[in-house]
Amino acid sequence: MIITLTTDFGLSDAFVGAMKGVILGINPRARIVDISHDIPPQDIDHAAFIVRCAAPFFPRGTIHVVVVDPGVGTERLILAVRTADHLFLAPNNGVLKHVFDSHPDAEVFNVTHSEYFREHVSRTFHGRDIFAPVAAHLSKGLSPEKLGRPFTEFERGVVPRGVRLGDRITGEVIAFDRYGNGITNIPAGWIDDPETVRILVKGRVFESLARSYLDVPQGDPLAIIGSADAVELSVNRGSARETLDLKVGETVTVIFR
Amino acid sequence: MIITLTTDFGLSDAFVGAMKGVILGINPRARIVDISHDIPPQDIDHAAFIVRCAAPFFPRGTIHVVVVDPGVGTERLILAVRTADHLFLAPNNGVLKHVFDSHPDAEVFNVTHSEYFREHVSRTFHGRDIFAPVAAHLSKGLSPEKLGRPFTEFERGVVPRGVRLGDRITGEVIAFDRYGNGITNIPAGWIDDPETVRILVKGRVFESLARSYLDVPQGDPLAIIGSADAVELSVNRGSARETLDLKVGETVTVIFR
Amino acid sequence: MIITLTTDFGLSDAFVGAMKGVILGINPRARIVDISHDIPPQDIDHAAFIVRCAAPFFPRGTIHVVVVDPGVGTERLILAVRTADHLFLAPNNGVLKHVFDSHPDAEVFNVTHSEYFREHVSRTFHGRDIFAPVAAHLSKGLSPEKLGRPFTEFERGVVPRGVRLGDRITGEVIAFDRYGNGITNIPAGWIDDPETVRILVKGRVFESLARSYLDVPQGDPLAIIGSADAVELSVNRGSARETLDLKVGETVTVIFR
Repeated sequence: MIITLTTDFGLSDAFVGAMKGVILGINPRARIVDISHDIPPQDIDHAAFIVRCAAPFFPRGTIHVVVVDPGVGTERLILAVRTADHLFLAPNNGVLKHVFDSHPDAEVFNVTHSEYFREHVSRTFHGRDIFAPVAAHLSKGLSPEKLGRPFTEFERGVVPRGVRLGDRITGEVIAFDRYGNGITNIPAGWIDDPETVRILVKGRVFESLARSYLDVPQGDPLAIIGSADAVELSVNRGSARETLDLKVGETVTVIFR
Repeated sequence: MIITLTTDFGLSDAFVGAMKGVILGINPRARIVDISHDIPPQDIDHAAFIVRCAAPFFPRGTIHVVVVDPGVGTERLILAVRTADHLFLAPNNGVLKHVFDSHPDAEVFNVTHSEYFREHVSRTFHGRDIFAPVAAHLSKGLSPEKLGRPFTEFERGVVPRGVRLGDRITGEVIAFDRYGNGITNIPAGWIDDPETVRILVKGRVFESLARSYLDVPQGDPLAIIGSADAVELSVNRGSARETLDLKVGETVTVIFR
Repeated sequence: MIITLTTDFGLSDAFVGAMKGVILGINPRARIVDISHDIPPQDIDHAAFIVRCAAPFFPRGTIHVVVVDPGVGTERLILAVRTADHLFLAPNNGVLKHVFDSHPDAEVFNVTHSEYFREHVSRTFHGRDIFAPVAAHLSKGLSPEKLGRPFTEFERGVVPRGVRLGDRITGEVIAFDRYGNGITNIPAGWIDDPETVRILVKGRVFESLARSYLDVPQGDPLAIIGSADAVELSVNRGSARETLDLKVGETVTVIFR
């Protein structure tokens, strides 16, 4: 059974290694796959976006563990979430907002049954002491029902939505990748014909969606349907974030011509 | 069988990949787990600390390979170390100091039997040419006795110890993690009641140990029992290293009230 | 079956995780090994060098996937390459130049059969939509012949060669590693006796090849046969790139005395 890990622990410390040791001690057959450990420290929104972009591509039965957890050691809850295909394990802080958004019928459990935790639970490292052993038990077939009671008052989080009104869509930049591409919340599915739209951002106008980065000269910006299946702002061999001076929340408008 | 890797090779070069290729060529069933490859180049103390924080959490039989090896190509020795639960493979430079400290009865072997090395051993990359193949053979069940003779004159390394005298403990900062938390050598076990101690560092006084980072306002420092099971200096959503201008070796005092 | 991954996707985004999810969805038994995801963005030469340094150490049957692909979304082709021992999958942009150089008889196929791709292929992320599923099918035993027609007009790329003339070899720096070692294209095999050569670079003369970094005082430069089995320029506990102000392409001369 596959367990994916998404954390802000970085790879220069022992945190991720310790989690893997705990998992393998409980389930030596677990397949552990790193999604990212380079989430900016405590950046819940970015972690939520990364999970949205990677989790759906894993096979049925995968257990996704997300530990971006500024509230560790407080009374914040830990959630086990079951969707049609996957299980998720994460603190109750909105980091699963895209999961709840895409799976309104997800079942949520409040993880409290400490018999599945490490015997001694530290104040600062629940990744090792709770998330890892619970994930390992899930990967051995433990039902999430065994972890605690069903729970509905969880933190859903806010997923900013693009708005379609008449001949225009208004959306915003919701994340950047390492290349400086700005990913928006304007779904590809809202645009039938990439040739017939104009995209506006920060006073710039793109007369259509590009088909590849190389549609424009090196260093020039463009708009394209990116791998998150949404409108993205990019620069051929450069960074849209820098070139266009973009920030998360920046308004992006699509006009149907 | 699990083989963990801790190196200063980074992940931008081919070094780690080459090691894994060699291991899998000898034992296709080896489970390779990265602990960290981002040890600061040649920082033996930091590597020793990372091994201390991750290795104990792995299941019995795990083989821990540590390649932080400024003396590569010289006559420095390579050690195979057997403790009750684990095997360790590392250069004889003190990088296993915490292992020797926690396991005074560890058996140590001087790795010299080159039939377990790659046929051609380079001058600069024993990770690939000696450590990887030897670890792979160990993971197939080879006894460390086969690698060379028992050895007692190895480099034990120095583990700085906290000192308890009367109503106070004097310790020091021994490492930082990526968040800037300063981990001390004052064991949690020396403090019965976290409410009845005062912690002093750099002229600051903490009136008790915190129970979570959120016990103090954002940006404020605190002392807490961290995941290494020792007193740590932290800042809520910040870096104790920066805020308190800490260095490794900085004195930390605990006073029982 | 082992699948190695070499990309410029970094580890802070969801790209690598999504690729692994796709692979495991098609072949749950695939062994995925990261070589590097920290190739500088779109640096085809560096990726080619990393593949050269890591790929040969993997066992027979390994599938090496290389996704450094500035032309993604254009009409650039994708190649499947079979050598005596390995398969390679990469864009047709020269990133396999060292493979072609070492294996002049490699068989090359133009990957066009989209029944092995993901159903929806994005414009910007063929790593997830083409390379990952095709690699997964190869790892289940699919023959590269099934991916498309044999192909000879591929981009071979240029491998700069050292030149031996009389009592001297003229070569150049072809890559740097994270330590700042400068790897040249002067093969170790051209130098019978490391004691009888003089190495010249940027007006400096090294009177012989060193046997370890510690042959010279800390901070001093040296020349040594490195792990790529070629002459390397290094600094004991420092960076030759910085100390000698080296660049890729810098001339290095070996003189037999």
